[in-house]
Amino acid sequence: MGELIFAGLGLSGIDGMTVKALNALKECDVIFAEFYTSTLIGAETDELENVLGKKIKILGRSQVEESDVIIESAKRCRTGFVTAGDAMAATTHVDLLIQAAEENISVKVLHGVSIFSACSSSLGLQPYKFGRTVTLPFIESGYQPRSPYDNLVVNKKEGLHSMILLDIRADESRYMSAHQALEWLIEGENKWKCNLISDDTLICVASKIGSNDEKVFAGYPNDLLKKDLGEPLHTLVIPGKLHFMESYALVHLAGAPHSIIEEED
Amino acid sequence: MGELIFAGLGLSGIDGMTVKALNALKECDVIFAEFYTSTLIGAETDELENVLGKKIKILGRSQVEESDVIIESAKRCRTGFVTAGDAMAATTHVDLLIQAAEENISVKVLHGVSIFSACSSSLGLQPYKFGRTVTLPFIESGYQPRSPYDNLVVNKKEGLHSMILLDIRADESRYMSAHQALEWLIEGENKWKCNLISDDTLICVASKIGSNDEKVFAGYPNDLLKKDLGEPLHTLVIPGKLHFMESYALVHLAGAPHSIIEEED
Repeated sequence: MGELIFAGLGLSGIDGMTVKALNALKECDVIFAEFYTSTLIGAETDELENVLGKKIKILGRSQVEESDVIIESAKRCRTGFVTAGDAMAATTHVDLLIQAAEENISVKVLHGVSIFSACSSSLGLQPYKFGRTVTLPFIESGYQPRSPYDNLVVNKKEGLHSMILLDIRADESRYMSAHQALEWLIEGENKWKCNLISDDTLICVASKIGSNDEKVFAGYPNDLLKKDLGEPLHTLVIPGKLHFMESYALVHLAGAPHSIIEEED
Repeated sequence: MGELIFAGLGLSGIDGMTVKALNALKECDVIFAEFYTSTLIGAETDELENVLGKKIKILGRSQVEESDVIIESAKRCRTGFVTAGDAMAATTHVDLLIQAAEENISVKVLHGVSIFSACSSSLGLQPYKFGRTVTLPFIESGYQPRSPYDNLVVNKKEGLHSMILLDIRADESRYMSAHQALEWLIEGENKWKCNLISDDTLICVASKIGSNDEKVFAGYPNDLLKKDLGEPLHTLVIPGKLHFMESYALVHLAGAPHSIIEEED
């Protein structure tokens, strides 16, 4: 009997997955992977193959979304489908899960470490104080969509933190950098003027979260633009109202100006 | 030289931690744990000790928050501090991290699988469409605080999903159940009447997420109240505006009434 095991590999390395996922994947007959919705930092496919003891077939977007290669395999044998981060973060994974359920294929979801919790964790920000997450897309042919900016403004008005994911074009090896994202936000502010950011808005930058080279920064836009912020993958956070422990964390862990603690008092 | 390693054990079992965390904890000289801010489902301490090959000292709230036992140990030797879920979800963990930084103790944060991403993942809901998370506290001496209700209303108005964490009193082995939480919400609605929920509001319930006994449900309040919803730990979600794939997921994975798909069309 077939089976479909969705496993999140976590954020980084071949040791970023859970022990449970490792054990389950070792028992699979076939393993597929996709790395276009999210990227696993610092892990080569052949290392992953060595650890799991089998070949991994990496699928592109059209193979995942338009072909039935995964479902057909799962009808016949124990099939693993691995992705970076958690197992179900992209709509296309949910689509596959539903298809499998409709085909009465036995399904298991093995969760992985996700940027959705790890980013707040690394910055010392309280996870329940985040509003909706936004994603900044690359500006193409001069077109900059307004909705991410507007969603950030809503969070700010509610005093909530905002996590900002940056565009990933894994097939072209293009990853939006923190500097590009800061420019995106400044350009948006100049256009739409809803007081989302100014020269004295504190912004946090997280680089390669979950990896051994993880780095976090907090500062004002112009200072961050002049700074080496490590390599992508980058994630930004615009903090909302800070609890004093959060301010302390941003100063001590991310190099925020000490004045943000005094402002709290 | 000492070192302090914060490791999230994930949501369930001794195999819910990452391979990286397992390897790092095996190298620790001393391991402390706290399970009062969050609970690791289905894992006994002695199993954990067997896997890690050393004794684990479980600390209560006052030992973590008022004594310096962890920091003093980390000055001298490689010290692990483990918690359920991710490593930094509670303010008290951030406090420890800052104390260690101030003492120039080398620090590592090893992320774990967290309910903050796993809950949306198991329900097939898009993680970036969640507003702020709320926690429902037990109603004590008739006192029901209003702020969780109000925060849920804000999310609903923005069309966002809300994850609702339920009170954990691990020291008394009291865990708010999904039924108690539903009653909390209905009582709140009767008092504050902001149209958060009515008889035809779809609510999702997740039971023991991350464990092998994980179960998810979606339905109307009165139907859920009559249903066996599995055992705590429970998490609730009040979905906001649903994408058609999310509606499909709730029907196929969580038993939501099929009519929610037709409503979408």
